[in-house]
Amino acid sequence: MPKIIEISTSGRGFFNITRAIEREVAGDGLCHLFLQHTSASLVLTENASPEVPKDLETLIGRIAPDGDPAYRHDDEGPDDMAAHFRTLLAGHDLSIPLADGRLLLGTWQGIFLWEHRHNPHRRRIVITVLPEAT
Amino acid sequence: MPKIIEISTSGRGFFNITRAIEREVAGDGLCHLFLQHTSASLVLTENASPEVPKDLETLIGRIAPDGDPAYRHDDEGPDDMAAHFRTLLAGHDLSIPLADGRLLLGTWQGIFLWEHRHNPHRRRIVITVLPEAT
Amino acid sequence: MPKIIEISTSGRGFFNITRAIEREVAGDGLCHLFLQHTSASLVLTENASPEVPKDLETLIGRIAPDGDPAYRHDDEGPDDMAAHFRTLLAGHDLSIPLADGRLLLGTWQGIFLWEHRHNPHRRRIVITVLPEAT
Repeated sequence: MPKIIEISTSGRGFFNITRAIEREVAGDGLCHLFLQHTSASLVLTENASPEVPKDLETLIGRIAPDGDPAYRHDDEGPDDMAAHFRTLLAGHDLSIPLADGRLLLGTWQGIFLWEHRHNPHRRRIVITVLPEAT
Repeated sequence: MPKIIEISTSGRGFFNITRAIEREVAGDGLCHLFLQHTSASLVLTENASPEVPKDLETLIGRIAPDGDPAYRHDDEGPDDMAAHFRTLLAGHDLSIPLADGRLLLGTWQGIFLWEHRHNPHRRRIVITVLPEAT
Repeated sequence: MPKIIEISTSGRGFFNITRAIEREVAGDGLCHLFLQHTSASLVLTENASPEVPKDLETLIGRIAPDGDPAYRHDDEGPDDMAAHFRTLLAGHDLSIPLADGRLLLGTWQGIFLWEHRHNPHRRRIVITVLPEAT
């Protein structure tokens, strides 16, 4: 059975979960992370500068704005539809090569849970480790 | 050998294929769905409101417009290049954890074939089930 | 252990690496390609028209412009932040079904390394082959 972990977010923003994921995996192959939500993302991005997440927010906010007058779907508020489009663009899962229990990330790659809603949420991630062909 | 299924679309729009995929898979591990096309997408998004797909069309249409005067590639009409960019942004494949023949989707996640061309098409999906590491 | 290959780019643009990848894989299952960088992408797109990559550059340049006055992060120049956002939108990995050593790409799908930086770079790709469930 795959493993499921929960991550709490404090509202819109980037949460570096690289360590949390590393603790859960072992062996060799491919680590797959699947977010069971349509209003948050799992992404790899630059792990060093705190300014990169801020600029990513600015850029995605232009193409997926909160409270756009064209939205028909706003049951959960002005960030509801924006969050769905952000998730569609930025994705909801990651596949990362794994060797001897270590994720083969590049030097500057960090794993982030990107919360797209303004309110805090608990987000569920399904972790599956797949073996390599021998 | 992986399994290949075909889905017919009636032109641009979202087609919920969750049930069609569930019928094809069994066992445990990860289900991979691969669309063999560059002008349609496979996406997970909100499965309850019919207004979400309409708003997603509005939003992506702003950044991947039909018939943009800047396009050099329009061999198949004004939606040709728009469809390629939509595919690049929204993606062409999905990986979904599978347990005991059940896709571990979140409550609000549905699997959609998103047709980006205005004309009807037949779209081929390659389904591969990968076993979990033991 | 997964295989790692390096591809040299001559600066921003699309590099068709379909043949280079085909040479590295064998067997059946799923081929996973993972780019260890946050400023270049791996994408599938139309492999026939040289105009498609040019139009994709035009379109993504509108939503991830170089040298935007809003950027806080520009340590490596005006294309630094643009490259991170392009990578986030276009992705950094691919999963392609494999049968008898052949990638099951659609007729028009080619594998491209999309360099987002203007300067030449060497880019590392981790190749993992995953077996199908039996």
